[in-house]
Amino acid sequence: MADVVLLDLWDLSNKSELLLRSIQPRPPDDPCPAPRRPARRPVCESLLIVQYIDEAWPDVAPRLLPRDPFARAQARFWAGFVDKKVFDCQTRLWKSNGAALEQAKRDTIEALEALEAELGSKDYFGGEDLGFVDVALAPFTSWFRTYEECGGFSVAEHCPGLVAWADRCRGREDVASALADPDKVRSRRSSGTSKGCW
Amino acid sequence: MADVVLLDLWDLSNKSELLLRSIQPRPPDDPCPAPRRPARRPVCESLLIVQYIDEAWPDVAPRLLPRDPFARAQARFWAGFVDKKVFDCQTRLWKSNGAALEQAKRDTIEALEALEAELGSKDYFGGEDLGFVDVALAPFTSWFRTYEECGGFSVAEHCPGLVAWADRCRGREDVASALADPDKVRSRRSSGTSKGCW
Repeated sequence: MADVVLLDLWDLSNKSELLLRSIQPRPPDDPCPAPRRPARRPVCESLLIVQYIDEAWPDVAPRLLPRDPFARAQARFWAGFVDKKVFDCQTRLWKSNGAALEQAKRDTIEALEALEAELGSKDYFGGEDLGFVDVALAPFTSWFRTYEECGGFSVAEHCPGLVAWADRCRGREDVASALADPDKVRSRRSSGTSKGCW
Repeated sequence: MADVVLLDLWDLSNKSELLLRSIQPRPPDDPCPAPRRPARRPVCESLLIVQYIDEAWPDVAPRLLPRDPFARAQARFWAGFVDKKVFDCQTRLWKSNGAALEQAKRDTIEALEALEAELGSKDYFGGEDLGFVDVALAPFTSWFRTYEECGGFSVAEHCPGLVAWADRCRGREDVASALADPDKVRSRRSSGTSKGCW
């Protein structure tokens, strides 16, 4: 599998030489890299990449998806919920004003509350350790303060369990070292670009 | 796994008693059913349901996803492309006018051409038999005539290989019996609702 290349929308400033050699960045205002006629075989989209890694190296990497088919379907559902719903809410919070902002605020709170209910009393969405949904949602924790600033609400007040989970994740070196600085995200908001926030 | 319920956005008029008992339809103009505090465990969203079936009954059902992890990642990518991109284009073709309709037409043709390139010279996206991407895309073939009517273009002219694939799929009884009648889709367009078109 040495010829497989993993491509995603990550910040290019902090990525491996392999990734950089495999992609052709678009203009600076577009964070989406496009494959450059890759000699290697590309796997695109972060959630598909995580599933691919989990399946291609089952004995090497920690398994992020559960073994049970039903639990795996649930993990895919909630990771997709983060990828679509939370991302959509966040984008609208970031870009809206007036009534649209109020709607974005309500939708964001509702989405976070749904995630808090799914987390329940577990340490992680994956149970006792990080799983697929944790990996999908953790990068969004860098935006929580920006949600509060944009929407004028407290994430901790609505979702204390989710904030405790975020602190638990960010307290781990393996997670913290991969996430954007929340202050950097907030300052990017002023300049109107999310580049470098993932 | 007898306690697992598969929920989707299907037309409720033709679904099993089990499905009907498991969901609470929203108002008639909203085709999206919501779970009704199910006693059984729900698996939601069609692509997740297909993956669940494939993994939960590996020795009973025909396998729709490839065994190879890289090929599986590719199948997930293209099924997701259908689910997001083709559906989005179709919705815009259906609802737009003027310049927005022209853009929807260009995007639809581009998406279909990308799928035709992915199909290549294979009989099916899955190879010699139906696979995950075939199952994801086949329901959209019922809309091809409506694409042509809305956008004023010929799908066969732009994508002859894809139309040949669609004919191949619709020539199979197991596929044809599960798909909407293209004429029904066209007539629903006049009444402005897609209800009953899947």
